Amino acid sequence: MGRYAFGVDIGGTTVKMGLFDQGGNMLDKWEIPTVKDNGGERILPDVAASIQEKIREKGIEISDIAGIGVGAPGAVDDEGTMVGGAVNLGWGVFNIPETMKKYLDVPVKAANDANVAALGEMWQGGGKGYSNLVAVTLGTGVGGGIIINGKILTGASGAGGEIGHIHLEDQETEACGCKNKGCLEQYASATGIVRLAKRRLAKDGAPSVLREGEITAKAVFDAVKAGDAVAVQIAEQFGEYLGKGLAAVAAVVNPEVFVIGGGVSKAGETLLKYVEGPFHKYVFAPCGKAEFKLAALGNDAGIFGAAALILK
Amino acid sequence: MGRYAFGVDIGGTTVKMGLFDQGGNMLDKWEIPTVKDNGGERILPDVAASIQEKIREKGIEISDIAGIGVGAPGAVDDEGTMVGGAVNLGWGVFNIPETMKKYLDVPVKAANDANVAALGEMWQGGGKGYSNLVAVTLGTGVGGGIIINGKILTGASGAGGEIGHIHLEDQETEACGCKNKGCLEQYASATGIVRLAKRRLAKDGAPSVLREGEITAKAVFDAVKAGDAVAVQIAEQFGEYLGKGLAAVAAVVNPEVFVIGGGVSKAGETLLKYVEGPFHKYVFAPCGKAEFKLAALGNDAGIFGAAALILK
Repeated sequence: MGRYAFGVDIGGTTVKMGLFDQGGNMLDKWEIPTVKDNGGERILPDVAASIQEKIREKGIEISDIAGIGVGAPGAVDDEGTMVGGAVNLGWGVFNIPETMKKYLDVPVKAANDANVAALGEMWQGGGKGYSNLVAVTLGTGVGGGIIINGKILTGASGAGGEIGHIHLEDQETEACGCKNKGCLEQYASATGIVRLAKRRLAKDGAPSVLREGEITAKAVFDAVKAGDAVAVQIAEQFGEYLGKGLAAVAAVVNPEVFVIGGGVSKAGETLLKYVEGPFHKYVFAPCGKAEFKLAALGNDAGIFGAAALILK
Repeated sequence: MGRYAFGVDIGGTTVKMGLFDQGGNMLDKWEIPTVKDNGGERILPDVAASIQEKIREKGIEISDIAGIGVGAPGAVDDEGTMVGGAVNLGWGVFNIPETMKKYLDVPVKAANDANVAALGEMWQGGGKGYSNLVAVTLGTGVGGGIIINGKILTGASGAGGEIGHIHLEDQETEACGCKNKGCLEQYASATGIVRLAKRRLAKDGAPSVLREGEITAKAVFDAVKAGDAVAVQIAEQFGEYLGKGLAAVAAVVNPEVFVIGGGVSKAGETLLKYVEGPFHKYVFAPCGKAEFKLAALGNDAGIFGAAALILK
């Protein structure tokens, strides 16, 4: 087996790439633009060309490459097929490893980007040392990635770990992006926290620093840290939903650890505090030993995890 | 590898045993009493003696035995250790394969009985032909077993698949057996259905055949089949909770199929009808292709699954 692997994280705007050794060290990282024209047909050849350039630059032999791991936005099955295509890349249904090998003949593996990021956090991030974890990404939406015995739980149609769409609220009147009503994502994402905040502020005239300036998830947690009573109520409501949702996840897969990442998680330990209380209130006791950790790799989780598809 | 395996399902009253060939055929089945005296120390030696007797009876050589699979009531880790003991057998914490080998030197594997039953249904029952399934047992409680890529999802502390303790109802005032309030088990088990029925009947004086005789889960579904309007409302409420709970499970592990078993499932397709509607209302669409099947092995699921630990 070769000594190096490339991790490739394909996003709608840029493709992030990293060169890793078997010890899990990132030796280099860089990115190229994602060219989405003509059904995204240039994306994989562009990746291959960029990797070949990097190989020349570093003086690496093809035989030294253990493989290339690819994370892609959309459902990917265990064979690396984009089972539903990827709308925001222009991609239809095809097999990533087979296509990639036309341009660069080394082993290739592919998986969903959120699941790959979870694997990255397990390999070298907040979940290092664990082999059963649930990664929770609190960003524009709520994403999830589940690792069981060191392997990604892909699911029958590549939708394993879509925990943002667990139904939690029968009273919800607005629709989630998925068209259902009352999904976890509607309360625990960055946009969800803003919704909770606006609803709380509209309820009465209680004074709050949140009444000045733009309401964002960051503004809410900054206000919590500054002791704002209304912001604390919003954080409690957020924590109640997320804790309840993660308690359901724990009853299903009984993980060792939840690794919380995404933009909202920048609020740090303060945020975890609001989640852990409700989690313990709702969780089935034998599943209640799950720890809570913050993600550690930020935007690099995808390239780490993609490399881990090969090296781990 | 030997041609035969024994499946052993240890219960609080009897130990069920079966002899299987590699094709998954059950060649014989029998049971012995579970002797729980002195911390259940006789249980495994009794099992070994019974198997040795069966070997002699059938003229099977030890070298023809691929192994013995054991299902036990309680949390069992991937190495076959009873991590929390088993109160209703008198067992403390110990490793089943290591102990069993003292009495009979063949390969031994052990797992939790509910998970083993799920594996049995996948191997030769309602989930045959699938490799990603969730078995749901609607009995005195609500149990679950999750199979991912043909393997049991054990979980960090052996509590994977404990879906009966997903929290679903904030308004619940009575405690579940697990001490939490509002668990799926409180509405979808046999006892849960009786609770729903009693609450419904107490609400008003609407006529119902359920007002005569003992209220059981079977009586409720018999009344549904006879067109009793109140019984239909109870079944709808049951289906709403179970469908919502299984939609949450689907968002987490994205199974190909739910296999519904346990005493309550004797109501058959009528029961599935009440679950599938709410399931589709609450499920994240990409996880909504999961099929619903009835379990097919009844009380033999445990011995089938225990043998599958060896033969599958």
